[in-house]
Amino acid sequence: MAKVQNEKDIRRRHSGSHIMTAAVRMMFPNIKMGVGPWTDDGFYQDFDFGEEKISDSEFKEIEKKMRWIVNKNFPIRRYETDYKTAKKLFAHDPFKLELIEDLKKDGEKVFSFYDFGEQEKPFYRDLCAGPHLNSTGELGAFKLMKLAGAYWRGDEKNQMLTRIYGTAFDTKEELDEYLYQIEEAKKRDHRVLGKQLGLYTIDPEVGLGLPLWKPNGATMLMVIKRWFEDHQLRRGYIPVMTPHIGRKALWEMSGHWGFYNNSMYPPIELGQTLADYQDKRKPDENEIYLLKPMNCPFHIKIYTSDPHSYRDFPLRYYEFGTVYRFEQKGELGGLTRVRGFTQDDAHIMCRRDQLAKEFGDVIDFGKFVLEETFGFTINMYASFRDPKKKEKYLGKDKDWEIAEKTIVDILNKKKIPFVLDIGEAAFYGPKVDFKVKDSLGREWQLSTVQFDFNLPARFEMKYVNEKGEEEQPFMIHRALLGSLERFAAILIEHYAGAFPFWFAPVQVAILPVAAIHESYGEEVEKKLREKLIRIDRYDTRDSLDKRIRDSQMRKIPYTVIVGNKEKDENTVTIRKYGEEKQKVMKLEDFLAQLESERK
Amino acid sequence: MAKVQNEKDIRRRHSGSHIMTAAVRMMFPNIKMGVGPWTDDGFYQDFDFGEEKISDSEFKEIEKKMRWIVNKNFPIRRYETDYKTAKKLFAHDPFKLELIEDLKKDGEKVFSFYDFGEQEKPFYRDLCAGPHLNSTGELGAFKLMKLAGAYWRGDEKNQMLTRIYGTAFDTKEELDEYLYQIEEAKKRDHRVLGKQLGLYTIDPEVGLGLPLWKPNGATMLMVIKRWFEDHQLRRGYIPVMTPHIGRKALWEMSGHWGFYNNSMYPPIELGQTLADYQDKRKPDENEIYLLKPMNCPFHIKIYTSDPHSYRDFPLRYYEFGTVYRFEQKGELGGLTRVRGFTQDDAHIMCRRDQLAKEFGDVIDFGKFVLEETFGFTINMYASFRDPKKKEKYLGKDKDWEIAEKTIVDILNKKKIPFVLDIGEAAFYGPKVDFKVKDSLGREWQLSTVQFDFNLPARFEMKYVNEKGEEEQPFMIHRALLGSLERFAAILIEHYAGAFPFWFAPVQVAILPVAAIHESYGEEVEKKLREKLIRIDRYDTRDSLDKRIRDSQMRKIPYTVIVGNKEKDENTVTIRKYGEEKQKVMKLEDFLAQLESERK
Repeated sequence: MAKVQNEKDIRRRHSGSHIMTAAVRMMFPNIKMGVGPWTDDGFYQDFDFGEEKISDSEFKEIEKKMRWIVNKNFPIRRYETDYKTAKKLFAHDPFKLELIEDLKKDGEKVFSFYDFGEQEKPFYRDLCAGPHLNSTGELGAFKLMKLAGAYWRGDEKNQMLTRIYGTAFDTKEELDEYLYQIEEAKKRDHRVLGKQLGLYTIDPEVGLGLPLWKPNGATMLMVIKRWFEDHQLRRGYIPVMTPHIGRKALWEMSGHWGFYNNSMYPPIELGQTLADYQDKRKPDENEIYLLKPMNCPFHIKIYTSDPHSYRDFPLRYYEFGTVYRFEQKGELGGLTRVRGFTQDDAHIMCRRDQLAKEFGDVIDFGKFVLEETFGFTINMYASFRDPKKKEKYLGKDKDWEIAEKTIVDILNKKKIPFVLDIGEAAFYGPKVDFKVKDSLGREWQLSTVQFDFNLPARFEMKYVNEKGEEEQPFMIHRALLGSLERFAAILIEHYAGAFPFWFAPVQVAILPVAAIHESYGEEVEKKLREKLIRIDRYDTRDSLDKRIRDSQMRKIPYTVIVGNKEKDENTVTIRKYGEEKQKVMKLEDFLAQLESERK
Repeated sequence: MAKVQNEKDIRRRHSGSHIMTAAVRMMFPNIKMGVGPWTDDGFYQDFDFGEEKISDSEFKEIEKKMRWIVNKNFPIRRYETDYKTAKKLFAHDPFKLELIEDLKKDGEKVFSFYDFGEQEKPFYRDLCAGPHLNSTGELGAFKLMKLAGAYWRGDEKNQMLTRIYGTAFDTKEELDEYLYQIEEAKKRDHRVLGKQLGLYTIDPEVGLGLPLWKPNGATMLMVIKRWFEDHQLRRGYIPVMTPHIGRKALWEMSGHWGFYNNSMYPPIELGQTLADYQDKRKPDENEIYLLKPMNCPFHIKIYTSDPHSYRDFPLRYYEFGTVYRFEQKGELGGLTRVRGFTQDDAHIMCRRDQLAKEFGDVIDFGKFVLEETFGFTINMYASFRDPKKKEKYLGKDKDWEIAEKTIVDILNKKKIPFVLDIGEAAFYGPKVDFKVKDSLGREWQLSTVQFDFNLPARFEMKYVNEKGEEEQPFMIHRALLGSLERFAAILIEHYAGAFPFWFAPVQVAILPVAAIHESYGEEVEKKLREKLIRIDRYDTRDSLDKRIRDSQMRKIPYTVIVGNKEKDENTVTIRKYGEEKQKVMKLEDFLAQLESERK
C-alpha cells in the first residue's frame, strides 16, 4: 500500500508519531521510548511500557488526547546542541542515550531535538533529525491502526518493545479513502482469495515459498501463458527450453556463484546419496549442480552452440523459465515473495543498428500487455550508471553511451515520461523498470528491460559482421510480466478475483433446474467444452438458489440455468457475474458471443 | 532395433556365434574364447587374441571361412557330462574353466557342450547351454557387423577382450531388409538430425543428460504440448502446476527416498552455501530438499489440501512435469536416456463405479494420440501380480481384483489384443504399458497406465461417500507420450526429420527472387505470421538455387518463391518438401490451405 510520499506528508507523519507519543505519555508517564519514524503510509513509535500493559482498547483514549494536543496548536521547534547537553537532556531514557552514543561513534557533533510548546518547559521533547510540521495543529486527519511487538533496533537478541502504528492525512476524505483501501485490500488479499477461489496452496511439507497451483490457478496461468506466447510469436520471438539445474562450474563461469550465492539454493553434490554416505565417497566436481536462479547462462549456451552471422539478427529467445532463489524464511509471503517462480524471460541478441527498434518494440509490447490488456497504468524508471564512478561498472564506455542514448531517445520519441535514476544501473548495464498502478492505486514493480555487457563478454558471445570480423552482439534481458506467481497475485488483487472472461479459470457454470434437466445441461456442456470453454456443471442435489449463490461466490463470469423451457426451445438463461438480471439466449448465439468475447 | 525373437532365430543366431568362432579359430588357432550369446538382432563372441591383432578388414576372410563351414553342413550335437570331464575337455581355455567353476559353485552337476562334425574328433566344440540348429547348413544369410572392446564378464577390473558382432537371418531378403534398416536408422538418428535441424544440444558444461532445446526443438515441443493440452481439456482433464523440488521429509513420506534414492539426485542441504561452509553450520532438517523424480506426491498434496466428496469425481489432474533422475553417466544417450525430462503426467482420482469408464477413456485417448495422430501401431502389455506371491504387493486383495478385472474387461470389450505378464505388476498396482512400432518397424516403450494402491494409503487420500463415510479413492497414474524428450527422439526418427506441417518448427520458407522482391516477401510473411504460421524469410544474398537447396535440407514443409509475377498478381509459387513440381496459388488461397492443414 505504498503511497507516493511528498514533503508535507513526511512532516505530518513524523509529527504524528511525536504527538501520539506525547499522548501515550500523558497516560503512562513512566514509559521509555525507542524509535518513532514515518513510514510509507503513516508512522509508528516503539515503547517500553515496563510493568504496564496496553491493548488497542486504549486507542480511543490516546486519540482523544492527541486531539487535545492538536487543538492546543503547540509550536514545534527544532534545537541543536552538543554531545554533553544531549546526554543530559535525555538522561532519563536509556534508549535515547544508546542512540546518542552511536551517533557520536559515527562522528556526529551536532545533536538535534524537537520540542512542542513553551521554550523553557516544553510539553514534549524528543531526540530527532526531523523534519516536522510547524505546529501540532497542522496534523490533519489521523488514526491509530494497530499494535505489534518489535525488538529494539530490529535485533532479536534485544528487548521486545511495543510498537503502535498510526497514520495521518491532510483531510478526513483522504484518511477515509485510505481506510477504505485498507479494507478493500484486505478483502482482495490474494492469500485469502487464493484459498477461497481454489487457486493455489502452500504446503510446509512440500516447502515454504514453493506454491502448488491448484486446478483453478493453474488454468489461469496456462491461459495467460498461452496468450502471451501467441503475442511473442507474432512479434518474432522464438522459444527455447532449458533445464532447472546446471553444473556448478557454469555458475562460476557466469559469476552467479561468486556474486549471488547467498540467494541460491545450496549445491547438489554427488557423493551424498545414502550409498555414497556409507561408502564415504567424495563429491565429483563434474557432478555438482545448482538450481538455476536465472535463465541467462542457458540461453547464452544455446546461442554459443552455433556460429552466428550478422544475418541471423535479431534473435529473440524466450522461455517461461522456472527459477529458484533461496529467500530467507522471514521474507516469504503468499505469492509475492516465493522461492520458486516462473519468469517470462527473453534475451534479445542484435546488432547496434537494430538496438533502437528492438528496445522500442519491447516498450510497445510492455504497454500493450500491461496497459491495453490488463488496464494497469505504467510508470517508467530508467537507471543509468554514475558517470563519476565508471569503475563500478563493467563494459565499454561506448556501449554504455549507445545503450543509455537509445533508452532516452526512444522514451522521448514515444513521449513516455520517465524518472531517471543516475547511479542506479546494474553493474552490467543500464535498465528500464516498469512499475504499474493497480485498480486500488497501489504501485507494484513488474517489468524490467536490461542491457547486459557482462555475460556476453564472459561467455564470449560472437557473431561475424558484414566485414567478416568477429563482434560481440548487444544483449537485452527482458521480463514483462516479471514472475508469473507475483503477476498472478497482483491480478487477483487488481480484479478482486472477478477475472475477465478470457482468463477466468471456470468461465461458465451450468445449473440444471432439476434432475430431469441434467441431460440437456450435459448437452450444453459438451457443445461449450468442444470450443474449449471452461465449464463447471452442477448436479441438482442442492437447491437452485444455493447453487446460484455458490456460482456467485466463486465469481464465475456466466451462470447458465437450464430447465424445461430452455430444453424445448434450445436456449439458455444466462446471468452475468455481479448482475441480478437474467437473459434468455439461443444456445448457438450464446456460444458465438463467448467465442467473440474470448480474444 | 529390437526384433521380435522366435525360437528358430535364437537357434540360428546362437549357432552363428559358434560358426563365426570356429572360422576365427581357423585363422588364429591360439585364441581363447569368452562368452558368445545370441542377442536381439544377432550374436557376438568375445575373444582373447593374445599378441595378435585383428581389424574389420579381416571380416571378408572370416565370412569366407564361415561360408565353408556352412557348406560342409556339419551336424551340431549336444552332449552332457560331469564336472571332471568338463574340466578336462576345456583344460586349454582359462575362461571356460572359470565358467565351469562358477557353474559348480551354483550347484550345477550336468555340464552341456556342443560339437560340430565327427563325434570322435569334432571340428569345433564349445561349452554351451544351447539351443542350436541341427546342422551348420541351416544358418541362412549372415554377416559380420562390427568390432568392439569388452571386459571379461563385463567387469572393468578384468581383462579387456575383443568382441565381434554378427547377425544371421533365414533369407538374404530378410538380411538385406535388416541392413537397410540399420542404414536408414543411422540417417534418422535423432542425435544427427537433432544437430542438423537445430533441435537441441547437450552441453557438458551445463550437464550431461540435460538437453537445451534450441528454438526449432522448443517450437516443436510447444506445438505438441499445446495440441495435447487442448485434447486433455476437451476430455475433462484439469491442469495443476507444481515445483521441481520438495522437502526431503515429503520424499520419505512417499517412500521414494527409501526405495528409489539410487535414481535421485543427491539432496540440497541448507548448511552448504559458501557462508555456511565457513561458519560450519549444520543442515536444517526442514530445509533439505530433493529434486522431484516423479510428480505424484505434489498432485496428491493438491488433492489432500481440500476435503472431497463423491460428487467431485472423476478428478483428472494433469501437468507437463519436469522430473530429474540421476542416471549413471554410461547409460545416458541423446534424448532417449536423459537426467531431466518432462512427463505428460496425469492422475485420475475416481470412485469404483467410475473406474471402467475412466480406464477405457485413457485407452481410447492413447489410441487417438499414438495411432490416429502419429501413425504408430500399438502393442499392449498388461502386467498383473503373481497371485501366489501376494505378500510382494501392497493394497487390498479386493482392489487388485477390481483393477485387474477392469483391465481385462475393457481391453476385451474394445477387442484390443494384449500380452498378459503375470508377476510383472508394480508392487503398488497392476498396469498396462503401450509399446509402439515406428515407420522402421522398431518397437519403443512409450505409454503407461498404472493403478496405485500405495500412495493414496500413505498420504491418506480420502473422500466422503454417499453414505457419509470416509473412503479411499481409486487413483490411476497415466503418461501417454511418456517423456517429451524421448517422444521427440522417436518422432524425429519416425519421420526422419520431415515433420508433418502442423508441428514442423518452421512451416514455410519465403524466398524472394531478388532484393527488389523482399518487400513483397515481408508482406507475405506478415500475413502468415499474423495467423501464427511459423516462417523463415530468406534474404537474397545467396542465389535462389542455393536457398531452395537449403530449405530442402532443413525439411521445411513449404518453400514459397516470390518474384515480379507473384507480386503483381498477389500470388505465391509454392513447392512442397520433397517434391520437384511447383504450383502458383493466390496468397489468400494458400493461407486458407495452411490454416485447414493445421488441425
